[in-house]
Amino acid sequence: MANHIVSSYDTDLQNLRRSIAEMGGIAEKMMADASHALVRRDVGLAQSVIAADPRLDGLQREIEERAILLIARRQPMAIDLRETISAIRVSGDLERIGDLAKNVAKRVVAISDQVQLQKIVVGVEHMSELVQAQLKDVLDAYATQDTKAAFDVWERDGDIDSLYTSLFRELLTYMMEDPRNITFCTHLLFCAKNVERIGDHTTNIAETIHYLVTGETLAGDRPKNDRSSFATAESPAGA
Amino acid sequence: MANHIVSSYDTDLQNLRRSIAEMGGIAEKMMADASHALVRRDVGLAQSVIAADPRLDGLQREIEERAILLIARRQPMAIDLRETISAIRVSGDLERIGDLAKNVAKRVVAISDQVQLQKIVVGVEHMSELVQAQLKDVLDAYATQDTKAAFDVWERDGDIDSLYTSLFRELLTYMMEDPRNITFCTHLLFCAKNVERIGDHTTNIAETIHYLVTGETLAGDRPKNDRSSFATAESPAGA
Repeated sequence: MANHIVSSYDTDLQNLRRSIAEMGGIAEKMMADASHALVRRDVGLAQSVIAADPRLDGLQREIEERAILLIARRQPMAIDLRETISAIRVSGDLERIGDLAKNVAKRVVAISDQVQLQKIVVGVEHMSELVQAQLKDVLDAYATQDTKAAFDVWERDGDIDSLYTSLFRELLTYMMEDPRNITFCTHLLFCAKNVERIGDHTTNIAETIHYLVTGETLAGDRPKNDRSSFATAESPAGA
Repeated sequence: MANHIVSSYDTDLQNLRRSIAEMGGIAEKMMADASHALVRRDVGLAQSVIAADPRLDGLQREIEERAILLIARRQPMAIDLRETISAIRVSGDLERIGDLAKNVAKRVVAISDQVQLQKIVVGVEHMSELVQAQLKDVLDAYATQDTKAAFDVWERDGDIDSLYTSLFRELLTYMMEDPRNITFCTHLLFCAKNVERIGDHTTNIAETIHYLVTGETLAGDRPKNDRSSFATAESPAGA
């Protein structure tokens, strides 16, 4: 796989891989916990998500520094250079995923005393579970450099965007039905948007895996079904 | 300023600087146009913002590739290495600023046929003008490597976050007052959030300038006054 002979370079690359795996584990847990905290109205769990974020930020800075020193000192070529660049990119996406999970957790704290619509929370939870599966699959694909698995993740992002757009419309409808739902639904809208953006970051990672293995950019437009920026809800009867 | 002797390296760095300046100009125009399109309900102008985004994406990829080749081929040290790394970071922030301006433009298209509350649009416009001034100042500071000016931008981000939090509350209140405002206000909430995030990216650029000039990370916590994740609106009387 590698086309170099300096064995300490192998060690450096392995260390980068290990740090990325550690970041991936933290990001997965933050996302799962934020989602559980939302469904169970668990403020304590939400606080633990917020508390986990600095570790992820620290790892990202560390990976970036180490990767750049590696490029400057060892002038890697081909696959080694791509793996080093990929580590920088993936760590950036994982750091952003942590930020987005943290933002969901903050909103759990905000809405803990609001009227909750369990039905719509379940919609966000379902979307979150899909994205969590995407994140798991793309991290596995990164560890095994499996472009086929990465491409599957990349293709499925359109499903998440469609789900987000329909949740967006549904939330607007609930808000129109009863003004007491507005604060809760607005925070939930941002939660759903954050989950959708986590999906975008898993798609970025899938594209990075393709680049890492093939040296080429994934061809064609992204499967983009998020039409929510253009979406409006039907006004409820009488409104 | 530079501590190298290879003059073609100077040319490479100058080319990077030029490309960053081009990206900065496009991002500034996209943001100003998106804001004008929102206030004037100008769908044509909004479409032109959407059309400008691919150029920004292309420039970002180009800068990243050129910068990494530079690091691998020339093994720059100290300020040269930092300038090359900074070009990668700043181009990433400018690309994200373009995405966020594009998203505002998409929402202008979505809400063009909705009841509009001019008063609240003016609030978003005011916030956008502050962020545009921040973007201009930070791009000037980058061009002149002026850490003092960069620090001023960095410090002012707290004001934008405070403004966003108060707009957030105000928008929730309008939604509660009249369900016909909900679709419009929801899109405006996301517009305001996008502008606030553009502010965060100008802060990132300010931090990069500090790193570029001093080699150190800007000490201390960011001035963070965005409390909107925790915000709720008072229910209107009778709701």
